[in-house]
Amino acid sequence: MSQSNDKNNLLEKIVSLAKRRGFVFPGSEIYGGLANSWDYGPLGVQLKKNIKDLWWEKFVEQREDIVGIDAAIFMNPKVWEASRHVSEFSDPLVECKKCHQRFREDQIGGACPNCGGKEFTEAKQFNLMFPIRLGPTEDSSNMTYLRGEIAQAMFVNFKNVLDTMRVRLPFGIASQGVAFRNEITPGNFIFRTREFDLMEFEYFVPESEWKKWFEYWRGQMREWLKDIGVDLKNVHEVEIPDGERAHYSKRTIDFEYDYPFGQKELYGLAYRTDFDLKNHMDKSGQDLSYTDPETGEKFVPHVVEPTFGLSRSVLVALLEAYQEEDKRVVLKLPPKLAPYKAAVFPLVANKPELVAKAREIYQSLVASPYSLGPIAWDDRGNIGKRYYSQDEIGTPLCVTVDYQTLEDGTVTVRDRDTTKQERVSNTELPALLKTTCG
Amino acid sequence: MSQSNDKNNLLEKIVSLAKRRGFVFPGSEIYGGLANSWDYGPLGVQLKKNIKDLWWEKFVEQREDIVGIDAAIFMNPKVWEASRHVSEFSDPLVECKKCHQRFREDQIGGACPNCGGKEFTEAKQFNLMFPIRLGPTEDSSNMTYLRGEIAQAMFVNFKNVLDTMRVRLPFGIASQGVAFRNEITPGNFIFRTREFDLMEFEYFVPESEWKKWFEYWRGQMREWLKDIGVDLKNVHEVEIPDGERAHYSKRTIDFEYDYPFGQKELYGLAYRTDFDLKNHMDKSGQDLSYTDPETGEKFVPHVVEPTFGLSRSVLVALLEAYQEEDKRVVLKLPPKLAPYKAAVFPLVANKPELVAKAREIYQSLVASPYSLGPIAWDDRGNIGKRYYSQDEIGTPLCVTVDYQTLEDGTVTVRDRDTTKQERVSNTELPALLKTTCG
Repeated sequence: MSQSNDKNNLLEKIVSLAKRRGFVFPGSEIYGGLANSWDYGPLGVQLKKNIKDLWWEKFVEQREDIVGIDAAIFMNPKVWEASRHVSEFSDPLVECKKCHQRFREDQIGGACPNCGGKEFTEAKQFNLMFPIRLGPTEDSSNMTYLRGEIAQAMFVNFKNVLDTMRVRLPFGIASQGVAFRNEITPGNFIFRTREFDLMEFEYFVPESEWKKWFEYWRGQMREWLKDIGVDLKNVHEVEIPDGERAHYSKRTIDFEYDYPFGQKELYGLAYRTDFDLKNHMDKSGQDLSYTDPETGEKFVPHVVEPTFGLSRSVLVALLEAYQEEDKRVVLKLPPKLAPYKAAVFPLVANKPELVAKAREIYQSLVASPYSLGPIAWDDRGNIGKRYYSQDEIGTPLCVTVDYQTLEDGTVTVRDRDTTKQERVSNTELPALLKTTCG
Repeated sequence: MSQSNDKNNLLEKIVSLAKRRGFVFPGSEIYGGLANSWDYGPLGVQLKKNIKDLWWEKFVEQREDIVGIDAAIFMNPKVWEASRHVSEFSDPLVECKKCHQRFREDQIGGACPNCGGKEFTEAKQFNLMFPIRLGPTEDSSNMTYLRGEIAQAMFVNFKNVLDTMRVRLPFGIASQGVAFRNEITPGNFIFRTREFDLMEFEYFVPESEWKKWFEYWRGQMREWLKDIGVDLKNVHEVEIPDGERAHYSKRTIDFEYDYPFGQKELYGLAYRTDFDLKNHMDKSGQDLSYTDPETGEKFVPHVVEPTFGLSRSVLVALLEAYQEEDKRVVLKLPPKLAPYKAAVFPLVANKPELVAKAREIYQSLVASPYSLGPIAWDDRGNIGKRYYSQDEIGTPLCVTVDYQTLEDGTVTVRDRDTTKQERVSNTELPALLKTTCG
């Protein structure tokens, strides 16, 4: 994030840009919205997909020791009993005695955020799981929950993965998907919402090796943050003390980020011990142990769990990329994350031969066998305005087709970050884009 | 699907292969499952992702006239009132008077599937939307629904897209995501489940052009089916007559497929008229009309909607690819869809120099800048068994590293479909894989 930005209104600027340029729209907006729900627009969906795909490629496809799964959102309710989400996954809820609004106890700061009232009811535990009834019968045996985390599916499928994939410790099971928490007070744009996208894996290790792998994944999480353009000086690795960790964890480091609204959680790294596998063994009666193929030793693996919020990754990628410079706003997104990889312009819009040549180049990039990703087209106004427009959405390269192109096939390529221009042959564009944008 | 396969047990074979080789596991299996929920395993998640990514690339990234969105699952309940899902999205439910089980009226065939009883209660309409309560308050103003389709978000965001993306008619808004329907009787593996993944777009056109675009998209849907390996002779385009179409549609063609359990719906193509935009205009009070920039004419666009079930795409891709040949089972998936793009073997596992060379080649493919996708490694048993194992999961190419490799760098590449082998230089492998697998 640029030093020149005033932190106090950076979030407002991002929300405004996100709406104006099609990154993120308020959910159900024509109906006055729905508290803290957000829809990713045409550019936001590409940014989100690029982050998601990069993560999958890095942590699943390019690693021999991690496999993916994609589990159903509806699970047997016994899963959530075994994991203690039903009994322990809750926040303290209080009600203002004056206006009767309800709040999370730790977020009222002594006075009601709604009416300023100072008297509240005794706190009670409010469970964050969304109950749901499956099928047409009315008895309670058909009640379950929307998943409150994606981790449980990886524990529940541990044996299936072991039986089918010839994996050996240490190995991980990864997943990406939506989780649901009935937050008492969601807020801060896409930071805290009642549905949110997670990317995480459970990394199974012998108990004796957990510290080594905890440190290894801590380092990998830092590398990932750099991959998505985060300056590590804005990230704080906070050791969560005894008594404040989730019920399943013996050690947790929160990766907290300097958001415009304060230092808050971005990612988490937890040592979950053998808590989950053991619980599921007890409750299901299934054997979820692992037998070492060399020593024959049989044991329940321990788990190190790196969790990456996808929605929060999108948010920090935008916050980090946003720059106000002399005469422009520019999103300096890592090129791999940019929604458009390049934009193609005819120098002027009223010369048919220029437009035709520019269209031809545009089409060749869109349909390139290199699968370059989305390419923008713009023929409005002057070149300066088009650059401004592409800078604001983070397009790494702008390609201008001019009269010289008609003669020798060269085009002007302008770099987003340096604003420098150079002439290259249009036939070199696919390779140049591939090199620039990965 | 191979003519040699007995249709009656083809589904059983697919379910068995899917479980054994890590494509699809029964959901929550260690707890005895959860009625008709399924989890995609390590190979299934790759197959599903490949289909999803191919669709997105073809219909969004490579098209100038379609943009994507990714909307929240929770929407303002007024959306579902305007769309008439609250009032009309239901199935006729009957209860057997003998055993009190409940069924969809059109699926009982005269006698109770559970106990054979022949007397049922009068049918009543059972709404398929899942109700959900947001936040910690108990009043009904915080009730909404899990989305019953992904289409509504595209209508609700029509104005946002119009305002931010400089789109002109005809254009489409595309989305991929999960939808939820509280089906009375789900079943047939991943064919009908209560949560399912959809891919679809709303294509906005002037009313006068709807027939042309309906035919255009009908053709494109056929092309897509070929892309994922479906023989069109197994697909039937069924015109849905008056009185049987969904409430919003003036014309619908169901793309039905010859599943082992009968001819049933795969995809749908619907002409939704201006029903949805007009309803949302009425109910929200917002102007959702479009002004033609050339003529100045202002009107509400009409909609042609191609819908592609993603879960069903995975199912038909497996059904079509499955072949039993003389001495092997082979999944002849289009290489673009295959979970592993190639497998690398050392000829024997007990010669360190062979294993080292094979590992080196394997690693270079995994980390290739071409982003080749997942590569398998196998050093168990003999080459024949390894081929068998890779054929069964659809790996297009098997690469064997032998003594000659140590001398001249060439490897044996064996083709899944022809079983033919040829020697190529290991340095040519990335380009060969890229050409074969797209």
